[in-house]
Amino acid sequence: MSGSTQQQAEKMAEQLQQKVQVGEEGKHVLKTPKGTRDYNPKQMAIREKVFNVIVGSFKRHGAETIDTPVFELKETLMGKYGEDSKLIYDLKDQGGELLSLRYDLTVPFARYLAMNKISNIKRYHIAKVYRRDNPAMTRGRYREFYQCDFDIAGQYDPMIPDAECLKIVHEILSALDIGDFRIKVNDRRILDGMFAVCGVPDDKFRTVCSSVDKMDKMPWEDVKKEIIEKGLPEKVAAQIGEYVTLKAGGMELAERLLADAKLSKSEASCAGLTDIKLLFTYLQIFKVTYKLVFDLSLARGLDYYTGVIYEAVLTGTGTGAAGGEGEPVGVGSVAGGGRYDGLVGMFDAKGRNVPCVGVSIGIERIFSIMEQKAEASGERVRTTETQVLIASAQKNLLEERLRLATTLWDAGVKAEVVYKRDPKLLSQLQYCEDSGVPLVAILGEQELSSGTVKLRNVATRQEVEVSRSDLVAEVKKMS
Amino acid sequence: MSGSTQQQAEKMAEQLQQKVQVGEEGKHVLKTPKGTRDYNPKQMAIREKVFNVIVGSFKRHGAETIDTPVFELKETLMGKYGEDSKLIYDLKDQGGELLSLRYDLTVPFARYLAMNKISNIKRYHIAKVYRRDNPAMTRGRYREFYQCDFDIAGQYDPMIPDAECLKIVHEILSALDIGDFRIKVNDRRILDGMFAVCGVPDDKFRTVCSSVDKMDKMPWEDVKKEIIEKGLPEKVAAQIGEYVTLKAGGMELAERLLADAKLSKSEASCAGLTDIKLLFTYLQIFKVTYKLVFDLSLARGLDYYTGVIYEAVLTGTGTGAAGGEGEPVGVGSVAGGGRYDGLVGMFDAKGRNVPCVGVSIGIERIFSIMEQKAEASGERVRTTETQVLIASAQKNLLEERLRLATTLWDAGVKAEVVYKRDPKLLSQLQYCEDSGVPLVAILGEQELSSGTVKLRNVATRQEVEVSRSDLVAEVKKMS
Repeated sequence: MSGSTQQQAEKMAEQLQQKVQVGEEGKHVLKTPKGTRDYNPKQMAIREKVFNVIVGSFKRHGAETIDTPVFELKETLMGKYGEDSKLIYDLKDQGGELLSLRYDLTVPFARYLAMNKISNIKRYHIAKVYRRDNPAMTRGRYREFYQCDFDIAGQYDPMIPDAECLKIVHEILSALDIGDFRIKVNDRRILDGMFAVCGVPDDKFRTVCSSVDKMDKMPWEDVKKEIIEKGLPEKVAAQIGEYVTLKAGGMELAERLLADAKLSKSEASCAGLTDIKLLFTYLQIFKVTYKLVFDLSLARGLDYYTGVIYEAVLTGTGTGAAGGEGEPVGVGSVAGGGRYDGLVGMFDAKGRNVPCVGVSIGIERIFSIMEQKAEASGERVRTTETQVLIASAQKNLLEERLRLATTLWDAGVKAEVVYKRDPKLLSQLQYCEDSGVPLVAILGEQELSSGTVKLRNVATRQEVEVSRSDLVAEVKKMS
Repeated sequence: MSGSTQQQAEKMAEQLQQKVQVGEEGKHVLKTPKGTRDYNPKQMAIREKVFNVIVGSFKRHGAETIDTPVFELKETLMGKYGEDSKLIYDLKDQGGELLSLRYDLTVPFARYLAMNKISNIKRYHIAKVYRRDNPAMTRGRYREFYQCDFDIAGQYDPMIPDAECLKIVHEILSALDIGDFRIKVNDRRILDGMFAVCGVPDDKFRTVCSSVDKMDKMPWEDVKKEIIEKGLPEKVAAQIGEYVTLKAGGMELAERLLADAKLSKSEASCAGLTDIKLLFTYLQIFKVTYKLVFDLSLARGLDYYTGVIYEAVLTGTGTGAAGGEGEPVGVGSVAGGGRYDGLVGMFDAKGRNVPCVGVSIGIERIFSIMEQKAEASGERVRTTETQVLIASAQKNLLEERLRLATTLWDAGVKAEVVYKRDPKLLSQLQYCEDSGVPLVAILGEQELSSGTVKLRNVATRQEVEVSRSDLVAEVKKMS
């Protein structure tokens, strides 16, 4: 399916859904806002699994965590995102301050550093961000979505924190088992220097940059056409093309470009290339270079980057890929970041800067893939952790069930009772089957008089009779 | 300090803070929006501890979890909160749907049930909600704050889920060790019946109810005056006073009121009183009645309650209380909830209802108390989990440090390196002291040539020399 057909289909599906949800009686539309969704318990179980992998990696590298409000003063966000500012959600002016929902976690982080005069910290922050973009929910593009950010702020020796960020991306994407991936690396200074030596005027850097950024979605010929339409001579565009079509494994390409007659004249490019070389030295020690590509076409949209930039893309091959339905799942960024040494200074009254480098893992696409995988595998995802259901085989035993549940809860055992006075034993067993509760403790008249309970393994149907005072220990043993 | 003096002081402090943050150069105000705050790493560590207790209890009772968007269609929230609707944050109309930030988690839950036609579920949901209220941040009242909700939806036998909600509140507040507490219980039907027999006209129920709700903040005489000002005869107000000043331990009071000549004439009251009696039977089995009070003055503001209602307040006594600074910390609600059998039906096209009962734990106040306690105790709160720092005793060992860190990371050990080419050993040891890293692995020329590492316990300064291949095992053993 081509991109636009896909979009049309999505739009139709959305309209249909709305119609259905209005209902015959014309009650109001029953839906979540455009571009958002609920997470049901199964999706939450998958989400928890993904978060555990990500947080595990962040903590392995010594990060603390912080949190910031979901909205910021509007002026805090202004002038940070270039053209993308139009995608910011504003709050209604209800008297008082003008507020906007956060667009990412990086700008609030920089505001936090400046406000608290923090000059070094290694922190992660997992929270939802908001963009009034065109949603494409089947491909994991939402208006409300999670970002998992890891950043290192502080004045350090070159490329050491930068390399650790890439190590973390590699760690997380490997652990998630969602198929093969590549991490593209470039440097804003190399791009700027390259544009300069190719003859792009200073005031066109940003717009040419945003054209080049589209090279992962369209062929160079189309990008070139766009650059020419933006008013640049064909010759300049062709020159750019010679560089941005270069991509290779780091070290060698950096060496070659440092020796390039034109590019070596740019101080900015040389600084960037020297750093790229150093970066790849560290990445070799970290054993991750086999997934890395030095790609001169990587530009990244956001205004605030000042040095190395990177982006991880799934390539849709390998064991974990889940693109069985015709569309390659692989094409798409799942993480990105870079160095932004000037952002904190924008918030400081005296312009004091704090150099920062970080990475943001975009997990909606990862969720989509893992959900599809879970569905395809037919595996049952448990959504509760209940260890035992307290059931009764006869009538009039509700109070006995509640008494036993109290004993278990107070001992820290995860236990449930069915909320009926006299439920059938069969329906209680069915409840265990349906929700995956592994054990059931059954009470009857006989057990009551002997002070015992029948403890049954739901899967194997094996039963043991235990005294009530041993039940807690027995459940813990069998869990 | 009286309430209004306190408010004035808070306002002044806030204004002062703003002035300071504007900065001399007149750069923009560096602050979070009014009524919101950042969480720093120490606060996050406390927050994680509180969440673990709460989620632990929810899971012990077999709950799944869901998530919903931070904003809803404006019409989803309309007509659910009575007078409090004015506190809802609206988003700016930027074209498209009209949206509002969620005011609580209950209405989104009801919308979720109706939209997905779910007729029974036991779920928890922990997320931030938004109210444009007057903030009083020193007392833990914010405009952005967390709610931790547990709800049971489904058609069940009376009072069993209701009692479990109260068991959970008891479990959580006991485990958090924040001082003594009481849980007040009442029933909307008892209130309605009482108002009726006292001669309050139907259309004044809600407004009288909201006056009665203030009895935890002002004496009955003032509430009575307010009721009279609302146009009710003195005699009616006095009558109400005879009931709402009653509070006692459940069972006996319910019996007495069931025998009350007037109240027993109200069908609604009798239904409520009978259920209260049954509720207390279950609560006795759950061993929690010693913390419960049947309190006829408990009204709760929200429109959607239809049956039993409850609220937990800290009484500021006992070991965990942290009200050392003159103001009793105790006075204030930390949890509340009740039965709302009609809310889901408001969203269903055919008006199909799903009976629900739930509880919401308001944790900002709990955070405040625990933060104060942590500060008072002088205990060090660790904000990272790093097990070992890889340090060097000589120059030119950065690459060796990174190589060793790679081995540790790849084996799942939480390890850090200082991001300097040639840091002093002393500054590396200082880093461990400051951030609480318990172990340091030290590399020097000698260790390099012998293939070993010195592993030092930072607190005891004891050192062992281990071979590099044993380091992972040794760190794991010592952690």
